Amino acid sequence: MRHLVRILPQEHMVYFGDTARVPYGNKSQETVLHYTRQITRFLQGKRVKAIMIACNTASAYALAEVEKDLSIPIIGVIQPGAEAASAATRNGRIGIIGTNATIGSGAYETCLHAIHPSAKIITKPCPLFVPFVEEGLTDSPMTDMVINHYLSEIKAQDIDTLLLGCTHYPMMRPAIERYMGESVACIDPAANAAYLLKQKLQDLNLLNELPDGQVPEYRFYASDNAPRLLEFAQHILPQLIQNIIKIDIEDY
Amino acid sequence: MRHLVRILPQEHMVYFGDTARVPYGNKSQETVLHYTRQITRFLQGKRVKAIMIACNTASAYALAEVEKDLSIPIIGVIQPGAEAASAATRNGRIGIIGTNATIGSGAYETCLHAIHPSAKIITKPCPLFVPFVEEGLTDSPMTDMVINHYLSEIKAQDIDTLLLGCTHYPMMRPAIERYMGESVACIDPAANAAYLLKQKLQDLNLLNELPDGQVPEYRFYASDNAPRLLEFAQHILPQLIQNIIKIDIEDY
Repeated sequence: MRHLVRILPQEHMVYFGDTARVPYGNKSQETVLHYTRQITRFLQGKRVKAIMIACNTASAYALAEVEKDLSIPIIGVIQPGAEAASAATRNGRIGIIGTNATIGSGAYETCLHAIHPSAKIITKPCPLFVPFVEEGLTDSPMTDMVINHYLSEIKAQDIDTLLLGCTHYPMMRPAIERYMGESVACIDPAANAAYLLKQKLQDLNLLNELPDGQVPEYRFYASDNAPRLLEFAQHILPQLIQNIIKIDIEDY
Repeated sequence: MRHLVRILPQEHMVYFGDTARVPYGNKSQETVLHYTRQITRFLQGKRVKAIMIACNTASAYALAEVEKDLSIPIIGVIQPGAEAASAATRNGRIGIIGTNATIGSGAYETCLHAIHPSAKIITKPCPLFVPFVEEGLTDSPMTDMVINHYLSEIKAQDIDTLLLGCTHYPMMRPAIERYMGESVACIDPAANAAYLLKQKLQDLNLLNELPDGQVPEYRFYASDNAPRLLEFAQHILPQLIQNIIKIDIEDY
């Protein structure tokens, strides 16, 4: 959303965070698809003109299916992430990290090989990165230890590009970059995903123009009223967010 | 369940694991109560004669409320855990560790102070312990580092008893005991909870006696078909578990 606000500053937005049921990274495809369907139904009820799935796991497991039921554009982060990684690599050796579900789905590999058939792809699930970020341990000796635990094999593979295939990982980026060294470019799919959405809206003639002096409206919803989300969102999206409305996502 | 099987070997059992929505440790009381109500409704549909809430967070947040709606006995792990800790301490200084929700609820402190009014209680949430156990990192240099991260303050407080207030923590017990030293007794509420349930069933004349040669029946249900639960359950409960049936817990 931070990237969307920057790249599409004239658009109103409705945000939904599934705080009651996160993390998605160890769930089955069936469950992730069921949850993603509930969320897209909720957002359609808010009459949105397009949907972005910011979660890599939901993008990998559910985008292709929920797309079938929708008449509005919906994009995920896998395709734009793969495109950005393919554009960034010089030696064709790309590392991909993400949750157990994202890596297990093979979605990034399929997508990358379609764009860059000769790419050598090395993947590694890093299930402790999300809880570390949630605990605020984004840069500490313990963070360095968990990074070494998961990334030592990938580091030894002479990659020049590392795709951060989970929304949380860019928050550990300084520590990951320090560990991987200057020769490795870390790719966050979010910026390219936001550009892709802008392009889609442009193609469909759906871009909004705000009258002079009007500011966009942002509404935030979540499935649990965990106070830490508000605090975190205010940290990430300063001045945009006053409150988060709790909704019963099971009803959708 | 492992303790229940040992202490109540003649009882049939129905197990439910909320694999789709774990972990509970960072959720709000409202959400944990909602989920616990769904699960007790599901179990009542299986015509159980008593319910044990094995999860510390659900015990802390939901037991008192769900108890009101039930005509069958239901017990949690907070009371038996507090009793075991109170019985174990010599110097009256007790440490309690658990999830953010369990520690934040103050349930253990309230319960312990009712039993042992002069007890000095030191609490500490350890939110990374559950993901470490889920990752199989129960005894490693990283485990020692995360234990030191959370328990160094508690260790300095001259406690002689440490209550492991989360189902996952006993799996890190060897590493925790090594860190805390021989003078500190680590208490797992589970065994005492199983005894308490046996006592309740005895008092209500509800104990089962199996005919000679008959073995008890164990049925396992879960909200997600994550294959790791079956593997884990087979490791913990050898020979008891062949399959886990996935149910839609939102329907209850």
